[in-house]
Amino acid sequence: MTSEAVAGLPSVRQRITAFIEHRSVQRILLALILINAVTLGMETMPALMAVAGPAIHLLDKTILAVFVLEILLRLYAHRLAFFKDAWSVFDFAVVSIALLPASGPFSVLRALRVLRVLRVLTFVPSMRKIVGALMQSLNGMLSIAMVLGLVYYVAAVMVTKLFGEAFPEWFGSLGASLYTLFQVMTLESWSMGIARPVMEQFPYAWLFFVPFILIATFTMLNLFIAVIVNAVQSMHDEEHKAEHDAGQATQQQLLLQMQQLQQELQQLRHELKQPTAE
Amino acid sequence: MTSEAVAGLPSVRQRITAFIEHRSVQRILLALILINAVTLGMETMPALMAVAGPAIHLLDKTILAVFVLEILLRLYAHRLAFFKDAWSVFDFAVVSIALLPASGPFSVLRALRVLRVLRVLTFVPSMRKIVGALMQSLNGMLSIAMVLGLVYYVAAVMVTKLFGEAFPEWFGSLGASLYTLFQVMTLESWSMGIARPVMEQFPYAWLFFVPFILIATFTMLNLFIAVIVNAVQSMHDEEHKAEHDAGQATQQQLLLQMQQLQQELQQLRHELKQPTAE
Amino acid sequence: MTSEAVAGLPSVRQRITAFIEHRSVQRILLALILINAVTLGMETMPALMAVAGPAIHLLDKTILAVFVLEILLRLYAHRLAFFKDAWSVFDFAVVSIALLPASGPFSVLRALRVLRVLRVLTFVPSMRKIVGALMQSLNGMLSIAMVLGLVYYVAAVMVTKLFGEAFPEWFGSLGASLYTLFQVMTLESWSMGIARPVMEQFPYAWLFFVPFILIATFTMLNLFIAVIVNAVQSMHDEEHKAEHDAGQATQQQLLLQMQQLQQELQQLRHELKQPTAE
Amino acid sequence: MTSEAVAGLPSVRQRITAFIEHRSVQRILLALILINAVTLGMETMPALMAVAGPAIHLLDKTILAVFVLEILLRLYAHRLAFFKDAWSVFDFAVVSIALLPASGPFSVLRALRVLRVLRVLTFVPSMRKIVGALMQSLNGMLSIAMVLGLVYYVAAVMVTKLFGEAFPEWFGSLGASLYTLFQVMTLESWSMGIARPVMEQFPYAWLFFVPFILIATFTMLNLFIAVIVNAVQSMHDEEHKAEHDAGQATQQQLLLQMQQLQQELQQLRHELKQPTAE
Repeated sequence: MTSEAVAGLPSVRQRITAFIEHRSVQRILLALILINAVTLGMETMPALMAVAGPAIHLLDKTILAVFVLEILLRLYAHRLAFFKDAWSVFDFAVVSIALLPASGPFSVLRALRVLRVLRVLTFVPSMRKIVGALMQSLNGMLSIAMVLGLVYYVAAVMVTKLFGEAFPEWFGSLGASLYTLFQVMTLESWSMGIARPVMEQFPYAWLFFVPFILIATFTMLNLFIAVIVNAVQSMHDEEHKAEHDAGQATQQQLLLQMQQLQQELQQLRHELKQPTAE
Repeated sequence: MTSEAVAGLPSVRQRITAFIEHRSVQRILLALILINAVTLGMETMPALMAVAGPAIHLLDKTILAVFVLEILLRLYAHRLAFFKDAWSVFDFAVVSIALLPASGPFSVLRALRVLRVLRVLTFVPSMRKIVGALMQSLNGMLSIAMVLGLVYYVAAVMVTKLFGEAFPEWFGSLGASLYTLFQVMTLESWSMGIARPVMEQFPYAWLFFVPFILIATFTMLNLFIAVIVNAVQSMHDEEHKAEHDAGQATQQQLLLQMQQLQQELQQLRHELKQPTAE
Repeated sequence: MTSEAVAGLPSVRQRITAFIEHRSVQRILLALILINAVTLGMETMPALMAVAGPAIHLLDKTILAVFVLEILLRLYAHRLAFFKDAWSVFDFAVVSIALLPASGPFSVLRALRVLRVLRVLTFVPSMRKIVGALMQSLNGMLSIAMVLGLVYYVAAVMVTKLFGEAFPEWFGSLGASLYTLFQVMTLESWSMGIARPVMEQFPYAWLFFVPFILIATFTMLNLFIAVIVNAVQSMHDEEHKAEHDAGQATQQQLLLQMQQLQQELQQLRHELKQPTAE
Repeated sequence: MTSEAVAGLPSVRQRITAFIEHRSVQRILLALILINAVTLGMETMPALMAVAGPAIHLLDKTILAVFVLEILLRLYAHRLAFFKDAWSVFDFAVVSIALLPASGPFSVLRALRVLRVLRVLTFVPSMRKIVGALMQSLNGMLSIAMVLGLVYYVAAVMVTKLFGEAFPEWFGSLGASLYTLFQVMTLESWSMGIARPVMEQFPYAWLFFVPFILIATFTMLNLFIAVIVNAVQSMHDEEHKAEHDAGQATQQQLLLQMQQLQQELQQLRHELKQPTAE
């Protein structure tokens, strides 16, 4: 990305870029990520950790050191352009989690270290493509998702006011209601677990739950259909364009030949007129 | 919508229409709806209300007053045509809920006031379009939905007669059965929660539940497929029409050119006959 | 359907056919079915039956009598051809259920009488079409459904042998296993309700449940996709055929015109040779 | 598959191949599999086994002997090429299960014997095709499935570290976590059964569960869409190719005819020049 072409020898920066982006280096890094995935999985096995704990921890720390070095080199090579690439930012974030202090209230960060394994997505091009496609399919869903979000928010406020006092665990606060309605949207225990107990106190509660489920599932369905139609459409566009171009080419050829024919005929008429004029 | 073109100056009605439909006014109204969405959410937080309750209520009432004024102006501007536009009726309905007395048995109306936030759908054109598309996709589903509704009603009557006495909570009345069968259709706890207990008393109850689930899910599936096929079809129709028209145009050009060629040839024959006749 | 064209006057049979298939008669019958749907629903309401029970029963019996008469007339009009039409057989079946004795062990038949309401499907052409389309979409699913059925049967036998003794309620017999696996396929309480308790005794039971769920849902998914693809395909076939035919027509026209051109040119050559030969 | 064409008489190998692949033999084998399916189902019925147990076991053993003979003959006929065909390997595997000792710790193998019934898939061509299509649709899903698998593994390691100590039954080991997250992905009791109890101890657990469900269902949805789009695409490719070829053929004919026309015109010009030069 940085193209500071110095006349003679390549600069240090260029040599580092070439090194980091070299196929063998990339493969070694991918191998290290996969090994790290295994060691991070091993860390969840107490029996194994009792035996080989120190060795696994050492291996983990060594791999982390390599990752840190790699990120530093890439930072040096690309400078601020590094942060313009979403994948680089992702790599930076998941590696730096491991460097944060994870004691006391931040002990949760220790569990987040395994996110590092997701760097496989960065290193395998086919997976990178899939994630890109997934992200892109989110675009087509955006406006329907906003409608769904609006309905979801309004429903949560409503349900908090209606059932909040009687069922504080489920609808006691806006947050609790949002969570419970998310559960209802996944249809998990919505009736036996939530709606039926609520209906024992508010017999008309089904007037909220049934329409909410109908609207939410119908909107989600349309979210999915939007993704399907988008995918089919982009597939078509490519296909049709190629075919259409081919069809146009043949018809263009036909038109050309016809024009030649017409010219020849006109020339013939011209030639025939000449001798009679003599 | 009202086009009473008075010769000279614009009438009061026209000026009000122009004012209400002015971009800045629309933006201010949208901003007020969004602020209202936040304040209505805040009303569900007791800790916040203890501190800032009066201020929030005042803000809410002020915004409501603006909305009422807006609706009144639009009513004055469009008169009865106001009620012909579905979005206007929707705005009218969700705003007027707030003006109804919400004490005693009508305290539920207080919770419905948050529906006002859905006016975002009226004010953001892209969301308005999505809701329109959702409504339209309902059209294609209508006849399958009616078949499903018929099967659902027949099943509810049947199940009330069969299991109503033994399981009054689930199938005691037509309403209870309709609710329980809706739950069964969403597959929520249908077996462990409903069918297995019923089967302890009526061992052959599965002869009702299994076919009902198969028919209901299959019909719902076809409901969804109808929506997908409609969406794909309308996408195609547009695409194909454009392409087809282009193809037709080229072929029309070919035909025209060929007719010219034929005419020229006929003229040539005519010219050749003339001199020999001389 | 019967076309016994007697020279002069129409036979009794023809007049009955005409009467039964007359639009007004059909409409009256449809109205009666809808009224019957309401009265059958009313029969599930004890409070209403206490007041208006005899009247409702009388209405129900009168409507049934009309239906029986209608079926008899159609049987007389079409004779055995009546049983060749699936809709007629359906009408015959749901009406005759009401004539069977429904006392003692057959009291279930009383509940089945409401199936009569499904005759709406026979009388409303748009619904008839939908049901036809649903039936047709079953065709495309047949071979996948058979594969699914085979896997389902094998799984049921296996699970009966494996867990039948320990969990007789769920897997005690082939029938019990088939029901439980149907529940598992709908994903209802499959883990918390079934698989986890089984795994307490057979820790490796997940080796059966997880692959079963993966295979069953994947096969069901393909069942659905088959229906979607069929629907999209038949939509395309129609569309494309029309378009293709139009394209072909224009090209045929082009070819024809070109042949005329060629003929004209040949004639011109012929005419030109004649005079020079003179 | 083996094509050792000996000049005169067919070899023993060829005659065995012909015998095994003969239509009648194939039909008899299919009939035996179906009979075996019934007898294996019967073995789960204690009442029936008490009466006809020995006869059913004898029938089962006889059919098994036929299957073993069939596999041996096919092995002799095709030699090592036998193992190159996936269906042959499948037949070999499910038949040989029955020959393994099934006592003591291997008693599970007795239940696996019913897998033999799946050989119906090998013998019915239409089912073979369906299974082939299912396998092929897996291909298109591979890379998304790998992304899903990676996310699933990372989530399992994370959840084991976070909740493993507090909820050993659900998240105590990597295996337990993988199983529980599979359950969560199927949405079975994810909230009432798993997430809510966890949230009582870790109030922010929803920050894991809600995004996990969103990402997992969204990725699974895209898995399904990939299958749909693939199916629609392959359908299109065939259709379009045929149509495109037809269109090309007509246009090729047009071009040819136009070239003939041009030649004829040139010849005419040539003929006209000749006489004037004389």
